[in-house]
Amino acid sequence: MTSLVCPNPFEESGRVLLAHGGGGRLMHRLIESVFRPALGNATDLDAAVLPPTNGRLAFTTDSFVIKPLFFPGGDIGSLAVHGTVNDLAMMGARPLWLSVGFILEEGLPLETLKRIVASMRQAAQAANVQVVVGDTKVVEHGRCDGLYVNTSGIGVLGHDRVLGPQAVREGDAILLSGDVGRHGIAVLAARNELEFEVPVRSDSASLSQPVLDLLEAGVEVHCLRDLTRGGLATALVEIARSSALHLHIHEESVPVQDAVRGACELLGFDPLYVANEGCMVVILPEAEAERALTRLRQHEVTAQAVRIGTVLADPPGAVTTTTALGSRRVLDMLSGEQLPRIC
Amino acid sequence: MTSLVCPNPFEESGRVLLAHGGGGRLMHRLIESVFRPALGNATDLDAAVLPPTNGRLAFTTDSFVIKPLFFPGGDIGSLAVHGTVNDLAMMGARPLWLSVGFILEEGLPLETLKRIVASMRQAAQAANVQVVVGDTKVVEHGRCDGLYVNTSGIGVLGHDRVLGPQAVREGDAILLSGDVGRHGIAVLAARNELEFEVPVRSDSASLSQPVLDLLEAGVEVHCLRDLTRGGLATALVEIARSSALHLHIHEESVPVQDAVRGACELLGFDPLYVANEGCMVVILPEAEAERALTRLRQHEVTAQAVRIGTVLADPPGAVTTTTALGSRRVLDMLSGEQLPRIC
Repeated sequence: MTSLVCPNPFEESGRVLLAHGGGGRLMHRLIESVFRPALGNATDLDAAVLPPTNGRLAFTTDSFVIKPLFFPGGDIGSLAVHGTVNDLAMMGARPLWLSVGFILEEGLPLETLKRIVASMRQAAQAANVQVVVGDTKVVEHGRCDGLYVNTSGIGVLGHDRVLGPQAVREGDAILLSGDVGRHGIAVLAARNELEFEVPVRSDSASLSQPVLDLLEAGVEVHCLRDLTRGGLATALVEIARSSALHLHIHEESVPVQDAVRGACELLGFDPLYVANEGCMVVILPEAEAERALTRLRQHEVTAQAVRIGTVLADPPGAVTTTTALGSRRVLDMLSGEQLPRIC
Repeated sequence: MTSLVCPNPFEESGRVLLAHGGGGRLMHRLIESVFRPALGNATDLDAAVLPPTNGRLAFTTDSFVIKPLFFPGGDIGSLAVHGTVNDLAMMGARPLWLSVGFILEEGLPLETLKRIVASMRQAAQAANVQVVVGDTKVVEHGRCDGLYVNTSGIGVLGHDRVLGPQAVREGDAILLSGDVGRHGIAVLAARNELEFEVPVRSDSASLSQPVLDLLEAGVEVHCLRDLTRGGLATALVEIARSSALHLHIHEESVPVQDAVRGACELLGFDPLYVANEGCMVVILPEAEAERALTRLRQHEVTAQAVRIGTVLADPPGAVTTTTALGSRRVLDMLSGEQLPRIC
């Protein structure tokens, strides 16, 4: 007896069909032709079995709805991997395993999906994580925007410290790992087909290596926070509120690429609020600052690390900056976001 | 210094706004007013830290795009929890932790979101799992269908057996934990506002308790598979192919509610292919079948458990049924799905 496989004319369209999400033969072919070659056998399992781990686990989830799917410096696939890896790294965890859940729009070219999946594989390999389980759903044309992807991740903590705002102390130094605003501006340019004189590339990247390096060298890190939606300002406000301390930074010391600064001036954005996807704040004791900067600068992704400020006591929950003109201003959270759908 | 909170007229609309996904103040208010009361503090963390575990882990992910969001017997929230819990249970794992990633459509009433989140909480409590981390994104009106949700889950395996098709042996008994087709028909009825004489309720439920009970009692289970997209037939075909054995069932022994059978006849569906969300196949040695049935029948969700067939050797990869008329038919996978977007 042979299995009853009839040729299906719809399969030849090179596009995602509703039937690709039905759990039947077409879904299996999609898995075999697109997901398995890039991501391995895992992507059609309902659940993965993982080896026992030593130490506490970190667990995170992110859905990505970025528009457009491709932008200078990355795409929704690499962005999803970096975002999830970075969330784990910010807990001081070693990222190990990822899940991937796709929501595909009927009509999406299979070639587009293949490019994105290949980019995920590359980002996962570079960040030393494995995609171990996946899921695919398809919705009708017009009920999604090409594709959305969820990545969840598991990491292992090799230490018993608790990193986070609650560990921040008065007098701590505030470091920044790189220049701000590139991701938001790169996505905005791609979305609106703007051309800047000097093109801006997203900073989307894994921060896992420099973080593990700091921790393994025994640097006493108090708090790590990657800059995503809401940018540097929002990250600092969240830390200030949770720690009930006052974070003060020197605006001039925050690196901003000329092209990003120019685009922000043109468009009326404040670069301190524009998203990054490969940049973090590191808060640690004053005495550890130089050692941390030296180590961070050895990694390409954090080569531009600088000190930008200091943790003060009062007023609790506030973030202030000294501007280039020497005046002070208060940074608060925006109500929403200057640029929607940048991740 | 006080924080600069101005009243925002848009917040009074009672609907999801694009700005709710921006990482700013509105997103924090959404978390505080909707997610935190139901799901706890975890839902605004970038990553959760979990205690060390003994034994191997199971890890799973599922995105849910069911339409409509509410149906007799559940909604997208309870369905997501049950689906993820069941994927873990099918590996023989004890489900422990869930992540939740929302993609919300601009304009979704906040009351709808609250109902769904409350339903997730209830389902999670009943299944004894904790939602430990979350994420929220918002897309423009028309770029989603109310809301999509991804749930990923971590469970712990308390044994060192490997459950799955590779453990299935010739001569094994095939059990079914309940009646088939209810979820698909309930969703279809809700979508099309069909009224059947006897209303059909989805079987959406957690199968974790009966599975853990079987394993803790030392029943030698070879393979578990919950019936979702593609129904009983697709689950059996997948097991037959992966195990390279022949699964034979007696169609008459498969329980189908009269109302489901009637709806299937009316609509031209085969109940063996219609989705369930709280029903599973259990494959184990013939000698264990009675003991397993007795245990399963003690749990409400598997109270109707029956034996439906036997694993044979040849032809490998085939699924056959003996029909009510005594003839044989071959079950194959459908190309797509009879009913799209049922999960």
